[in-house]
Amino acid sequence: MAESIPPINFPKRLLMGPGPSEVDPRVYRAMIQPVIGHMDALFLECLAQLQQMLRETFRTQNAITFPIAGTGSAGMEAALINFLEPRDEAAVVVGGVFAGRMCEIIERCGGKLTRIDNPWGTAADPDRVRQAVRGKKLKLLAAVHSETSTGVCQPLEPLRQIAQETGALLMVDTVSSLGGMPLEVDRWGIDICYSGSQKCLACPPGLAPITVGERAMEVLRRRRTPVQSWYLDLGMVEKYWGPERSYHHTPPVNMLFGLHEALRLLQQEGLEASWARHRKSHLAFVAGLEALGLKMFVEDTAVRAWTVNTICVPAGVEDAKVRARLMERFQIEIAGGLGQLKGRIWRVGLMGLTATGSTVLLLLAALESVLAESGFGFDRGAGVAAAEKFFGS
Amino acid sequence: MAESIPPINFPKRLLMGPGPSEVDPRVYRAMIQPVIGHMDALFLECLAQLQQMLRETFRTQNAITFPIAGTGSAGMEAALINFLEPRDEAAVVVGGVFAGRMCEIIERCGGKLTRIDNPWGTAADPDRVRQAVRGKKLKLLAAVHSETSTGVCQPLEPLRQIAQETGALLMVDTVSSLGGMPLEVDRWGIDICYSGSQKCLACPPGLAPITVGERAMEVLRRRRTPVQSWYLDLGMVEKYWGPERSYHHTPPVNMLFGLHEALRLLQQEGLEASWARHRKSHLAFVAGLEALGLKMFVEDTAVRAWTVNTICVPAGVEDAKVRARLMERFQIEIAGGLGQLKGRIWRVGLMGLTATGSTVLLLLAALESVLAESGFGFDRGAGVAAAEKFFGS
Repeated sequence: MAESIPPINFPKRLLMGPGPSEVDPRVYRAMIQPVIGHMDALFLECLAQLQQMLRETFRTQNAITFPIAGTGSAGMEAALINFLEPRDEAAVVVGGVFAGRMCEIIERCGGKLTRIDNPWGTAADPDRVRQAVRGKKLKLLAAVHSETSTGVCQPLEPLRQIAQETGALLMVDTVSSLGGMPLEVDRWGIDICYSGSQKCLACPPGLAPITVGERAMEVLRRRRTPVQSWYLDLGMVEKYWGPERSYHHTPPVNMLFGLHEALRLLQQEGLEASWARHRKSHLAFVAGLEALGLKMFVEDTAVRAWTVNTICVPAGVEDAKVRARLMERFQIEIAGGLGQLKGRIWRVGLMGLTATGSTVLLLLAALESVLAESGFGFDRGAGVAAAEKFFGS
Repeated sequence: MAESIPPINFPKRLLMGPGPSEVDPRVYRAMIQPVIGHMDALFLECLAQLQQMLRETFRTQNAITFPIAGTGSAGMEAALINFLEPRDEAAVVVGGVFAGRMCEIIERCGGKLTRIDNPWGTAADPDRVRQAVRGKKLKLLAAVHSETSTGVCQPLEPLRQIAQETGALLMVDTVSSLGGMPLEVDRWGIDICYSGSQKCLACPPGLAPITVGERAMEVLRRRRTPVQSWYLDLGMVEKYWGPERSYHHTPPVNMLFGLHEALRLLQQEGLEASWARHRKSHLAFVAGLEALGLKMFVEDTAVRAWTVNTICVPAGVEDAKVRARLMERFQIEIAGGLGQLKGRIWRVGLMGLTATGSTVLLLLAALESVLAESGFGFDRGAGVAAAEKFFGS
């Protein structure tokens, strides 16, 4: 073989982009529990525990609740293709990249798409959604709860009403909200909901938790055509995760160990305490940014995600330069914008382990230092001073 | 939340089933390198190294060579749906469960399937394959190299000739052979080839390495219809793994760290040395089994996989009981048969770390001990004595 390749030994970054996020050492430790057979009784017991903890995190009683063996986009695909047959009508509320991805998937599986666009950085206007779907025989209405590309948190109550009015299933992406922002799958009437392991759950990427209610499972069971994907066919995958425990595909055993431990950590903190921690970190961070004269991209404070914080890049400041300097000088990763927001916003994840006073203050201090280099004018120290108040004395 | 769930602390098993297999401690160590951003320059460099090592393992120069973010079946699905459009003709050589799975996937994506069945436990008769596809406008001919459900290793040279005669792409599953048995993707003219991380590569499950030649990529690029899956669309995924390095989905970063280290281990041993080690372990194990009066399920020694060893359950011996006792008394996992072979065979993986003299002798000794309980008559010690000769003095 070719010249020998060195082992991986990366410097430690602080991951404050929109994911992957920081991972607790306990999760890493769980991941190296030696691999065990996927049909081993001990492993199956561990899966049952994991499923129960996922149900508690999604706030649901749904039997069909488990992680898909792929990253968030595999969850998105599973959440759509299982419930749509060719020529079924589906509507997507679009305000960013990830809802756009849903549209692509719906078209690939032959669905008839109604795309309801709203300006990036705003939540959808329920009246416009209602009007767009009026008279349609809608099978599924899809939306993104926390749009990772814009930092908007879409209120779900109005969408549920519209889904109810039209008889559609309500499908919601909670990739960057699950565990970090209030979400009540059962109480809010969400039929299909998926997330990712690598955001507020503070686990490495590789798993996409999904939960499916009985109404949606009925739709799946009554299909006239097979689901286009064998790997993501929930009717088959559920046979492994359900009481049958029959083999479908070999799941990513060690990733599941990690998620099990991540959910235990969340359970120990308490879900509502985690939501409150994410909220406080977000408010403190915003207060700090505004004290520096920076502007949040999402103007309406009521629809800002607490988890993905989007900041307008100020005039005269170079987006990529600031991010590169944060990495070079402080080993902090934040991200730029996607699609139409490229170069226009920064995206900061306060998710899981980084939703704390220490990381908020550190990032504000580092940002002040780097912005000072860029020639942007502001009161040095004002950001940290405004944020620190949120964390008590 | 509910009563608290304990951390995972499983006893150590010795995994000698058909996968997942044992994992080297170095691989676990690499997996807990703290997660890093999927667009981080250091990570992208690590991916380039991983791709180069995968090319060497597949024995190919194919640019399109990378792990799919899912387990082996995701690799199978990607290897089929990217190259088949509705009504395209595809033929599958079937001699076990996994080739049967290919047929299901082809039908789900609208392909016109020619299924060429041969008795489980035998390799395909090239003349029958040739006859079955004669006159068809075949786009793809698919086969399983080492059929994990039967232990047959299908010779690929005759299939390549048939693919050439018909102008079809040759697609081969090497889930349980890659790294453990000779495989020469370029020299053998394989157009599409995939595997899994959890067999001879001795990594946990979660990744499916795939390699695609230029001829197949041309077929993909000339499609008239989009690939049905967004997640597994290789034309999009390659943009992340190719020089563009543009974001598609977040890959399972820590699993990739693990595979990087597993491939480094293989590189250090040498690929051909690894093949030879798997062959010797297989021959020693078979000699031991035969000395005990046990019979291999695959009669033709020329088509036995070295990696997945299948043994006929002797008359009067309870399949499940023997496996349960191996686990209870020695913490050794082996597997039973799948489908029509349920209750009829045992499947023993000598893959990666278990393809060694020590594990072969240990398993034979344990099997002797457990078989003695079952009332099966044989010379005690004969198995170990016959096998140990293979490992020098």
